[in-house]
Amino acid sequence: MSNGKNGLTKWTQYPNIVRLMKLHEKPINTISDVWDIYREDFKRVEAQIIEDLDSEVSLINDVGYHLLKGGGKRFRPLLMILCSRLCNYHGADDIILASVVEFIHIATLLHDDVVDEADVRRGQPAARSIWGNQASILVGDYVYSKALYKAVTLRNQEVNEILSTTTKKMSEGELLQLSKTADTNITEEEYLKIIDSKTATLIAATCRLAGVISDAAEEAKNSLTRIGWNIGMAFQLADDTLDYTATKERLGKTLGKDLSEGKITLPLLHLLKNCSNDEQPLIHRIIKEGDIKNEDLEFIQALFKKYNSINYSLTKAKGYIKTAKQELSDYEDSTAKQALIAVANYAITRDL
Amino acid sequence: MSNGKNGLTKWTQYPNIVRLMKLHEKPINTISDVWDIYREDFKRVEAQIIEDLDSEVSLINDVGYHLLKGGGKRFRPLLMILCSRLCNYHGADDIILASVVEFIHIATLLHDDVVDEADVRRGQPAARSIWGNQASILVGDYVYSKALYKAVTLRNQEVNEILSTTTKKMSEGELLQLSKTADTNITEEEYLKIIDSKTATLIAATCRLAGVISDAAEEAKNSLTRIGWNIGMAFQLADDTLDYTATKERLGKTLGKDLSEGKITLPLLHLLKNCSNDEQPLIHRIIKEGDIKNEDLEFIQALFKKYNSINYSLTKAKGYIKTAKQELSDYEDSTAKQALIAVANYAITRDL
Repeated sequence: MSNGKNGLTKWTQYPNIVRLMKLHEKPINTISDVWDIYREDFKRVEAQIIEDLDSEVSLINDVGYHLLKGGGKRFRPLLMILCSRLCNYHGADDIILASVVEFIHIATLLHDDVVDEADVRRGQPAARSIWGNQASILVGDYVYSKALYKAVTLRNQEVNEILSTTTKKMSEGELLQLSKTADTNITEEEYLKIIDSKTATLIAATCRLAGVISDAAEEAKNSLTRIGWNIGMAFQLADDTLDYTATKERLGKTLGKDLSEGKITLPLLHLLKNCSNDEQPLIHRIIKEGDIKNEDLEFIQALFKKYNSINYSLTKAKGYIKTAKQELSDYEDSTAKQALIAVANYAITRDL
Repeated sequence: MSNGKNGLTKWTQYPNIVRLMKLHEKPINTISDVWDIYREDFKRVEAQIIEDLDSEVSLINDVGYHLLKGGGKRFRPLLMILCSRLCNYHGADDIILASVVEFIHIATLLHDDVVDEADVRRGQPAARSIWGNQASILVGDYVYSKALYKAVTLRNQEVNEILSTTTKKMSEGELLQLSKTADTNITEEEYLKIIDSKTATLIAATCRLAGVISDAAEEAKNSLTRIGWNIGMAFQLADDTLDYTATKERLGKTLGKDLSEGKITLPLLHLLKNCSNDEQPLIHRIIKEGDIKNEDLEFIQALFKKYNSINYSLTKAKGYIKTAKQELSDYEDSTAKQALIAVANYAITRDL
């Protein structure tokens, strides 16, 4: 069996896969196209998530149902499925791990909402708004422990190592972020370390895990990790930018949420570095105050425009996506590859 | 090599162990005697805990140092060491796992304090009183993920299975407890299920893990699990009783803390079942109110005396210890066995 670059199998050698590709000969441009093609896989992921959330403790089911209803992009399961296809994986562990990585993500959201005192998540009331902080903390713990419990059932040491390293790094990132709250001296390097830890690491791990269950070569696993990491960095950078630019309808988010939580993300960091000496104390005051008024947000947004801070962040995000796509360009052409390129583009545009 | 009951090796066959036993020929009556004998092991455990808490994120070190300074009984590490000695284990994994189980315990304490809005832990300000709920939640997550990270480094599937099953069950227990807050209809069966999940499971797992790293036979591992589980049930029952009887100096606890948090433990459950129709609504009012005044607590304590509720709980606790000691009685005599009996007695008396 001949292999493409990085030890990944050439798709074209599998007639049934070629047939599947032919079924989807129309170009894959958007993430909606990707959802269309892999609809059956995603149905299996959703079924797995529902099964894994089921518990004899009714409070878990209540919160779980609320989280499922709230939707979410299932961005990590999506990458798990696509990278598994890229590796020509034919087993069932990808579905289990898709649920595992989504659970780890959901656990962090539940705890983040308590930490950030957030009332809204994905345009719906946050779980803590309905069941209180106590339930959010404990269901978060449950969801996280259930994720690791499911992962352990795969009896794969490498899977356990990746997940335990990842979750440790994620919680370190959350704590680093907390310790830098409203700290106007935060450097770009520290900011990048935070988004690496809290977001890119899990997305990189997701892609790597697809390689692990596929018995891919070390080089291939490293390549998948780089693809995931770069997409993850861009994804969080775009999120931090959209916090200042997106409409509520589009992302179900409150504009300026990071600012009101004292989270200094790249646009603000860029602004602090480039603004005039007169503007600096005004920005500092807004950051320290916490209670952000409409005029404060408009003031910051005007300065973003003046100093091109949003563009600076988006250019940085595009750079990561460019790197991810360069890595992907070395792979044989396939439906999965095209889908991953569409997902990479989506990470920064969020266009459906 | 001949084995004692349950596949555990007879201590008497190891001259160096017999020598160690001879060094400690004076009877082991109290937990202080146990600390004396195993001082070197506990030093290694403390060093391991300090090493594992170390992080490049300074907030983790600050909270970690506070937790270490606060002490704690190290009850789970103690059982890990003693059960390892009982199994004649000579490797280094017992020290690592002693730190792991203590970390899992510390993580639950950090989250419990936020859930219970507790200000004091072990007579010291709770971490959340100093660094806030945010840090307590996130350091809890870190400590938990670090525990599993360390456990995974042992590359032992059985260890991972035990720990992931245990932590899942623990968080289910915490949620069951939360959902039964101030619920005067809670049954004794439900109460026992809560203390099984939130406390006995981890202590049972600790003792089982000692068997796992010792390559003990399945029967021996099951025996160790029963010893740990029964000690764990008694330990929590005693805790729930001491909440109404201990002095602040003795346990560093606030009297009636469970009552003010709406936690209906066995003494209260027994009282609700046995009190008169006149007393019932008064007790219900106190439970529902949450803000417990001194006279409320004194009223409840007087009723406990009237209906013998404290004794009922302690008798139940003693029953579990009796079972644990019966299980231990089948083992060959050894220092570790004597120490475990002393620890079992301590679990209900808390006499140093």
